[in-house]
Amino acid sequence: MGAGSRRELDVESPSNPAVRMLRELHSREGRQQHGAFLIEGTRLVAEAVAASWPIVAALYDPVRAGEDSQLASLVARIPGALRASPRALKAAGDTVTPQGIVAAAKMPSLLALVDPVDPIVLVLDGISDPGNAGTLLRSAMGAGARTVLSSRGSVDLFSPKVVRGGMGAHFRLKLGEGLPWPELAAILGSDRAVVVADARSASPYYGFDWRRPAALVVGSEAHGPGPELLERATATVSIPLEAGVESLNAAVAGSVILFEAKRQRAVS
Amino acid sequence: MGAGSRRELDVESPSNPAVRMLRELHSREGRQQHGAFLIEGTRLVAEAVAASWPIVAALYDPVRAGEDSQLASLVARIPGALRASPRALKAAGDTVTPQGIVAAAKMPSLLALVDPVDPIVLVLDGISDPGNAGTLLRSAMGAGARTVLSSRGSVDLFSPKVVRGGMGAHFRLKLGEGLPWPELAAILGSDRAVVVADARSASPYYGFDWRRPAALVVGSEAHGPGPELLERATATVSIPLEAGVESLNAAVAGSVILFEAKRQRAVS
Repeated sequence: MGAGSRRELDVESPSNPAVRMLRELHSREGRQQHGAFLIEGTRLVAEAVAASWPIVAALYDPVRAGEDSQLASLVARIPGALRASPRALKAAGDTVTPQGIVAAAKMPSLLALVDPVDPIVLVLDGISDPGNAGTLLRSAMGAGARTVLSSRGSVDLFSPKVVRGGMGAHFRLKLGEGLPWPELAAILGSDRAVVVADARSASPYYGFDWRRPAALVVGSEAHGPGPELLERATATVSIPLEAGVESLNAAVAGSVILFEAKRQRAVS
Repeated sequence: MGAGSRRELDVESPSNPAVRMLRELHSREGRQQHGAFLIEGTRLVAEAVAASWPIVAALYDPVRAGEDSQLASLVARIPGALRASPRALKAAGDTVTPQGIVAAAKMPSLLALVDPVDPIVLVLDGISDPGNAGTLLRSAMGAGARTVLSSRGSVDLFSPKVVRGGMGAHFRLKLGEGLPWPELAAILGSDRAVVVADARSASPYYGFDWRRPAALVVGSEAHGPGPELLERATATVSIPLEAGVESLNAAVAGSVILFEAKRQRAVS
């Protein structure tokens, strides 16, 4: 391909409407307006396609598709994918290193109720770092959660960085985003234990019986859970640390507890 | 203080030799040449001081020290700390948001042998992301490891980003850095189980008996452990994941296993 395909671009300029739309998905307002979120790179877009997730727009670099058979077969599966110039792709995307494909995935519809038999639900309460949120989604997916909720004040689960860190979790998990606590509690239902990770708790996380349906609430490192949340808690748990060690990374702490819950369900 | 202290700066220009020395610590060569590594910010420098760790140079912003009593009392405990201009501090440091203090901590001396009774040693084998390495050091410290080793080809454990992510682990752990495997194995000693985390392993990590002294080897996400390492392994373990989920973040995977080892030692 090379020089030949350059002449056949659908999208040349960064001011093209498709580029502008993808660019608007970098912000929460834009995502709400368009009802879509940004997915970048062959791997993530392939996860969306594998999940038969609706893709509302896609731009790709035809020169790279000519050199990369994975990208070529991926775009062949996306009807309406547009051939774009590298600078259009760079403008549409959020990453420093431009990817060969940038797309818009349809926002999932709102969650009604969590299935009462789901063994574990992860709740992010005030997690502000997008890398940590993405890592927690990936861990939740690996540990068998089917739903992850976030309370109002947490990082937006559909921001490009969280989506990248989630490594496909957005297409496998049911997500409820930015919920006020009363609404979040209603979605969890009343039969589920609400277990709050709290460094001040005297109860080790492995002392809790995770074989019954539970929601694990992981909060911000800096502040710990607030009084409103602690009132709703069935139990609090902590990860015992060596003397003098203050805390763990929030994504690590949540993951350690998620996998202990999975371990208990596996060995019992 | 304010305007008055401005006139009494020890270090005004980014070309001052102390700034140049700190700047050289951003690179591996500079750290080897000076036998020191960079520590930035009140919290990290306070960890070094609390551990009575030798600090070979320190620059701080006297205006910020006039407003921040924590910083003021910290610099009072560092003999020879120099008052520096904000632009000198920015040039010396590695962070985007300039910190009120930037210092050089003495490199630890080389490790001879791991104490045979140490319950667990963490080995980083080909971990290239500095954020993951820093998080693993922090987790290792919390999970009771006293020694962390890295094999040749891993990210430099004394790079500024790893040091920041370690949150003080560098002053509490014995570290051996960039070791060829034969040397690393000699440091571990012959009586210690070498357990390699390998996603392809059929043995769940919680089926291993972590109550005897072990070394946990965590490798790169992308490639998994190489044949040379697998030959040295006493056992391989994996973290069972939900069907279709490819892998966990490397820092999460290592941490989940470290805390399972700690759990087994606690409940037995």
